[in-house]
This record gives sequence, structure tokens and C-alpha cells, in this order.
Amino acid sequence: MIGNALERRRKVLAPTYRLFYSEPVHIVRAEGVWMYDSDGRKYLDAYNNVPVVGHCHPQVVDAMTRQARILNTHTRYLTDKPLELAERLLATMPSELANVTLTCTGSDANDLAVRISKAATGGTGVIVTDFAYHGTTETIAGMSPSAGIEPGHGVFTVASPVAESAAELGARVRTCVARMRAAGVKPAALLVDTIFSSDGIGSHPAGFLADAVKAIREAGGLFIADEVQPGFGRTGNHMWGFQRHDVVPDIVTMGKPMGNGHPISAVVTRPEVIAEFAKRVRYFNTFGGNDVSCAVALAVLDVIEKEKLLANAHSTGVYLQQGLRNLARDFPRIVEVRGAGLFIGVQISSREETARIVNGLRDEGVLIGSAGRNGDVLKIRPPLPFGRAESDLLLTTLTKVLQKSAG
Amino acid sequence: MIGNALERRRKVLAPTYRLFYSEPVHIVRAEGVWMYDSDGRKYLDAYNNVPVVGHCHPQVVDAMTRQARILNTHTRYLTDKPLELAERLLATMPSELANVTLTCTGSDANDLAVRISKAATGGTGVIVTDFAYHGTTETIAGMSPSAGIEPGHGVFTVASPVAESAAELGARVRTCVARMRAAGVKPAALLVDTIFSSDGIGSHPAGFLADAVKAIREAGGLFIADEVQPGFGRTGNHMWGFQRHDVVPDIVTMGKPMGNGHPISAVVTRPEVIAEFAKRVRYFNTFGGNDVSCAVALAVLDVIEKEKLLANAHSTGVYLQQGLRNLARDFPRIVEVRGAGLFIGVQISSREETARIVNGLRDEGVLIGSAGRNGDVLKIRPPLPFGRAESDLLLTTLTKVLQKSAG
Repeated sequence: MIGNALERRRKVLAPTYRLFYSEPVHIVRAEGVWMYDSDGRKYLDAYNNVPVVGHCHPQVVDAMTRQARILNTHTRYLTDKPLELAERLLATMPSELANVTLTCTGSDANDLAVRISKAATGGTGVIVTDFAYHGTTETIAGMSPSAGIEPGHGVFTVASPVAESAAELGARVRTCVARMRAAGVKPAALLVDTIFSSDGIGSHPAGFLADAVKAIREAGGLFIADEVQPGFGRTGNHMWGFQRHDVVPDIVTMGKPMGNGHPISAVVTRPEVIAEFAKRVRYFNTFGGNDVSCAVALAVLDVIEKEKLLANAHSTGVYLQQGLRNLARDFPRIVEVRGAGLFIGVQISSREETARIVNGLRDEGVLIGSAGRNGDVLKIRPPLPFGRAESDLLLTTLTKVLQKSAG
Repeated sequence: MIGNALERRRKVLAPTYRLFYSEPVHIVRAEGVWMYDSDGRKYLDAYNNVPVVGHCHPQVVDAMTRQARILNTHTRYLTDKPLELAERLLATMPSELANVTLTCTGSDANDLAVRISKAATGGTGVIVTDFAYHGTTETIAGMSPSAGIEPGHGVFTVASPVAESAAELGARVRTCVARMRAAGVKPAALLVDTIFSSDGIGSHPAGFLADAVKAIREAGGLFIADEVQPGFGRTGNHMWGFQRHDVVPDIVTMGKPMGNGHPISAVVTRPEVIAEFAKRVRYFNTFGGNDVSCAVALAVLDVIEKEKLLANAHSTGVYLQQGLRNLARDFPRIVEVRGAGLFIGVQISSREETARIVNGLRDEGVLIGSAGRNGDVLKIRPPLPFGRAESDLLLTTLTKVLQKSAG
């Protein structure tokens, strides 16, 4: 069955498509934190951040269905759902961030944010970390060194702030601005994922972003917080990753978990920052702010609140991180445990051992991934209803895999 | 009620947002070819191409709900829906077009198509028409003169092939390639909407694209057919706009109607064209090819077939165009009627008169829009279940509006 699907896939999908794991999984059903394959096998999902309130959450599905039966149109007509959603999103943010633009994907949001920053500053230079991932458009792929292509025109990189060097990020941004100026490029923005996901998860010390934000503003540039991965409560206690650093961005982008799998994203700005762009450009996003996508995103916000998923992300995160640190005592291949809430990065001694662990866990029915320039960080980032029982299962399975594997 | 919504909107949405009509409409419900406002007023929708099978089509809503209850994940796992959809899409195309990449918006698809064309040719030059619209990403906005910004780096324009000059497009592309070469830019692609929607609808003589395609290929570039607007049967008889011109593109992009309002789009390529891109770039689209979006798109294809919407687009299109031509005899302000199937452009004598007609129709309960560099073309582009009765209503209402308005 899986062989047939693999063959069909090779035949009709572009060669750009890549599957996870040495033995790909053929998923046919998912619910909560569980996924099921075509052989009826069950997998604990400790990887997927997109279904943030759990796979196929009935309240989200119902909201989508209800709205889809009534109306799904665009923002050239006045409709209520985009307004409700914008109001709800702004209520989670500092008051300086007051304008919403609804978009469809994280790439879409980041691309727009960069365009806005260029219009606002008159600059073209953008600073990103050296193993960043911000998306797939030509412009944003050029700001995503982890996607394997050369930095785009005007894009400059700073060393990734993972592990203990994080506090130096401000100094690195200042040096980078100097390099940029020397190349005749005027700074427009510092664009960072506020938990540095693809860089290998850079979480501590909380607050280290503040000096980097100061540095880009001193240079006349804006701070764009890419909340596509850390946003919607993943880091625990806070709704947004930038809040852990006690900074207020000029522009915030969000995406992945926003619709629990439904394509929706957004850009939130300080009003003064988007004025110039709005004056110059006729911008319209056909699907951005359609009523069904907005109804879905509203339901996701409802569930996050009702099920107290921020508090759960925090408490489960603390519990799971502690369990991983305990495991590190027995297995020196575990070099460091980083993270906040339910976004956890486990530094492993080598890329090979990381791949062995990731594939070993998959074979034992637990799904995680890897991250970092060297592919040597376990990426643990489950749907937020992940609890202690699931953490225990992850930990015991990981122990088993570590015991089995060499190293 | 509308006043309150307008105020909320001004407060929380970015100043980029623009509403249609002198008196915006506050839509609360839609069904088939009808939309309803907050005062219970009914509008005939002769504008919206996105809900291609009709607003809130129950078969599409049911397919979405059914899939959303079972599974909605991404293409790093093997799942069946993206394969089914890719197979169905390819079955509508010439056999040379054999690879599908699933994306989320038309902009997303066009941005990827341009990246693919650059990788395949080693060129960076892209030719578009001088009032084209291809989307919102920084790269694609730079290829969308109608969005009001300067052409991006490497972007060259040719005069829009609307009305009688269409047959000269090939010659114009040759001249443009020469200009490009003189500027030291190597051609990558000719990117056109195959019905030239924003240019003011360029439909005849069918076949005029062939020489332009020949010209770009002679220059070493690719032909990208932007089917975001003409695709999915709108032009009648044919599923894709390029088929009216009897050409086989190197890359086809599609979007808007693909999910009847749900955000989904796609890029279809000749395999040899995407090989280089796939080798160089790690491309992954989080929401592209998610199972729910695919299920929705499959349902749209089912309905198009089951309800014989191509044949209807053709026959209603012929009927409506004839009615408009009859009207032109009594009202010389109607200069020309262009179009194919249910994509009709009516050339009006002035921008002011066009605005009067569009707003007059809205006041009488019929929704259309305008297009073209001078804003002097009525854009009539209803959901495809639009029939003769609706055409008659549009024609009698238009007659009334024309009788009322000055000019």
C-alpha cells in the first residue's frame, strides 16, 4: 500500500518533495496528539506545531463548517469575521501594535513585512541569522539560509544565537550593520524567529533579544518578529515569543498554528510603520481575510483559551525538559537541553546520532524532527494538548532508543 | 450597522485595505450566484471568479468537513489526497505537463514559477504585459504594474494585447528580448495571464499567444501561463486559457477558483524544467498540499464536471456577449465587447462612465467590477453556474443604469 503511494507520488509530484524518515510514514488519520498510518499503527506526535490545539479538533472543524455554509468572500466587501479576528489578535498584543493585515502563509506574511519595512525606512538591507528559515517566496528564501540558497540582494547574516552565545546578539547586529553600511546598503530590518527554530532553538537567557532590537533601531531599521513558530502560546505563559524578551516589535508576523492546519497568517504593525507602504502600493490579498479562514482562526484562539493551553505548554514543557535533563546524566550524547514551553531543542553529539535517534523514535511510534546547521538538534514541538503521560511515553521511548543505539 | 463595521475596520485593519463601490456592501451571506447584505438585500454576483462553482456549494463544504474530521497534515508524510489531486489536475493537461507542486495562493504559485524559470534558464529577465497583475510577493508585485509599483529588477514590459493589437504580441516580445539583452539581462520567462484580465481582457483572436511563446523560446526563456484567472473552465469549452491558444506552456500556475474560496493553488511543470530548481533548493510549503485543501480542490473538480460548468460557461458566455453587443447598438458608450466564456470585458468610453455604471449596477443589486489601465472596462466574471436568467437580469439592469446615467 505504501509502495504504491510512493510510486504515485514520484510520478505526479515535483522532485522538490521530500519525505521525513528513512522509512516514510503513510498517514491516514490523526486526532489530538496521535497520528495513524495505513497499517493501523499509532504514532505519538511530538513534532507538529501546526495542529496547535490538536489534530482535527472538533471545535475548529465545526467553526469552519458553520462559516463555510454561510459565507466565504474577500475583504473588498465589508464582512464581520476579519474584523472579529483582527480585534481578537490585537487584544493579545501590546497596544503599540494596532494594525492587522490578514495573509495566507508564513512566507506571505514575512514577504509583506519585509516590503513594509523597506517602504518605511527607505532601506533595503535585512539582517537574519545564519541558519534562519523564514519562508519560500523568492525574497524570503533569500533570507532563509537553511533552505540552501545564497542570501538575496541586501541580505546580511549574523551568527545564530543558540546556546550560551545568545547574549552577544546585539553586538553581532551592530557589527553587521557596519558591514552593511560599508557595502553601501541602508538597513531596513532585523528579521528573526523569536525562538530561532531552524537555527537549533535559541531560548535563553530570556531577554537577549532586547539589545539586538536596540541595535537595529539605532541604525534606522525596524524589528520584525517572526512568530510563525513561537507564536500562539508555544513558548508557554506568553502568547508570543517576543514577550519572553520584553520587547515590542515594529512588525509581527504569524502563521503555521494560526488555523490549526488551515492556511492563514497575518502581519501586525505599528500604524506609523505601514503608512508609507499603504500610500504607495495597491495591496490586496485575495484569500487573506476570507471569512472561513477567519472563523477557523477565531476557533483556534477560543480553544487555546478554553483549554488553557499556554499554562499546559509551560507546565508540560518544564516537566519534559526536566525529564530530558535527567536523561542527559545517563547519556552523554545529550549535550544540552534548550527551549521554552513546548518548543524544545536537544543538542546531540553528532548529526549521525541525531538521525539515528529521530528514525529510532519513529520506528518505536514517536514522531519528532531535527534542526540546526549541523542537523544535530532534536526538535520536539508537539501539539499543545501534549501532557505528562505523553511526555513520559516520549521519555521512556527515547531511553529505549538511546540504549539501543551505538554512540 | 454598516457604519459600525466601517469604523471597526478602519480601527483594526491596515490602511492598505480598500472596499469596492462608492457605497460599500456589507455582506453577511452568499449562496450560488447570490450575495446578501446586512439589510437583507440581495445582489446578483456577476463579479466573483473565486467561488467558481457558486458560493457555499454544499458538495465542496461537505468534502472539506469530511476531510477536516479525519486528517489535515503536510507533505513530509505520505498521504493520499495530494496524490489524488495531482493526478486529477494532470489529467486535464497536455501530457508534457507532468509534475505538480501544491501551493496556497496565486502569488505563491507565480513566485515559485519564476524561481523555477530562473533556475532552469540561468536567466533573470521576465517579460510581462504593461498592466499585468500576477500577485503580491515582492518579486511578483514587481511583475504586476497594475499594483502601482515600479517593475522589479530584470522585469521588462510589453504593451497589453487587448483589442485588435493582440496579434502583434509575438513581435513585441521579440523587441522586448532585444531591449533586455541590450541591458545585459538574460531572458528567463514570459509570464502572462492567458486572458489578460487586469490589462482589460485580451481574448481574441484565439491563438495570438502562439507566436509570443515561440519568441520567448527562441530567446532561451520559458513560457509561464498564469491561469489564476482564466483557469478552471472560465473561458468556456476549455479547462485552461492556454488551450484556446493551442500552446503547451513550460509552467502553468493556477489559484483563485481552485478551492472555491479556500486558499489553494498549484504550479504544474514540464519535468525537465523543474529539475535544476529541485537539485539546488530545499523547497517545502507547509500548507501547500495539506489534505483538507486537496479534498476541497477535488470536490471543485467534481462539481465542475458533474454540473457541466464548462459547457455552461461557453453557452451563457455566448448568450451574454450577444446581449451586450445588442446593447452596444443603443448605447455608443459601449465601445467593444471582448471575452471568452464567462470572462467578459466591456470597453466603455471613459473611466468616469465606467465607475458610474459599476456603482449604478451595485445600487440596483448587481455586482460587477472594472479593469484595464484606464479603468474603462467593465469586468464581468460571475461564478460559473450563472445562466440565461441571470444574464437577462444583468442585461435589463445594465440597460436601466445606462438609461439613467448621463453620457
